[in-house]
Amino acid sequence: MLELSNCPFCGDPEKIIENELAFAHYDTYPVSAGHCLIITRRHVAEYFQATAEEKAAIWELVDQVKTVIDRDFGPDGYNVGVNIGAAAGQSIPHLHVHVIPRYAGDVENPQGGVRGVIPHKQKYVRIQMGSE
Amino acid sequence: MLELSNCPFCGDPEKIIENELAFAHYDTYPVSAGHCLIITRRHVAEYFQATAEEKAAIWELVDQVKTVIDRDFGPDGYNVGVNIGAAAGQSIPHLHVHVIPRYAGDVENPQGGVRGVIPHKQKYVRIQMGSE
Repeated sequence: MLELSNCPFCGDPEKIIENELAFAHYDTYPVSAGHCLIITRRHVAEYFQATAEEKAAIWELVDQVKTVIDRDFGPDGYNVGVNIGAAAGQSIPHLHVHVIPRYAGDVENPQGGVRGVIPHKQKYVRIQMGSE
Repeated sequence: MLELSNCPFCGDPEKIIENELAFAHYDTYPVSAGHCLIITRRHVAEYFQATAEEKAAIWELVDQVKTVIDRDFGPDGYNVGVNIGAAAGQSIPHLHVHVIPRYAGDVENPQGGVRGVIPHKQKYVRIQMGSE
């Protein structure tokens, strides 16, 4: 298994739950209470470089950690997402999917969610409801 | 198959690629060139309400549409993410996963990416590189 000695996700970070190919770990710089990361055991740089089995292991853990977070934090919603490459804001080049619990009122207007990767495009006005 | 007459994702939106349970569709309010949505055929309100088969169909299409976007738009990275519930910024209550191509320089500082669901938490300063 490829490990990099200076990678914060290699080695043995604390695990919430795990499976054969990935594990869940609380984010050290949480965006919200319960914010966790699903991380591959193998040092894969980016999501699209993971094997089909690793991707399936990640999405399985997303479902499982949601039940843990529901129980322990009781959020009102979730954002699930992954930054792929430095141009997309990925800081640590070891694949990790964010599971971000959301709480009613945690921001003034939550509209757009993950669209906020480009901040000035997060909000938009829907011109014709029902026609998309 | 459940369809809602006033849902923009039910009916027959234009499809980039598709499989049995989901399809890819360009976002009508794109955050970036090539921004597309992976949408379940069934009117499922939220990601965690989808079946395991629907989720697998979504993630398969994410991989496939990435090759289409790479070819047609040549981005430098991607954000992939889903808003789950109104508290998380989900506007249309029919499951859709965002595939957002990113281009070097499209924002001044892309750091944090999907962390931007809570705008003032998008950026952070890593205190000790390597110790997380």
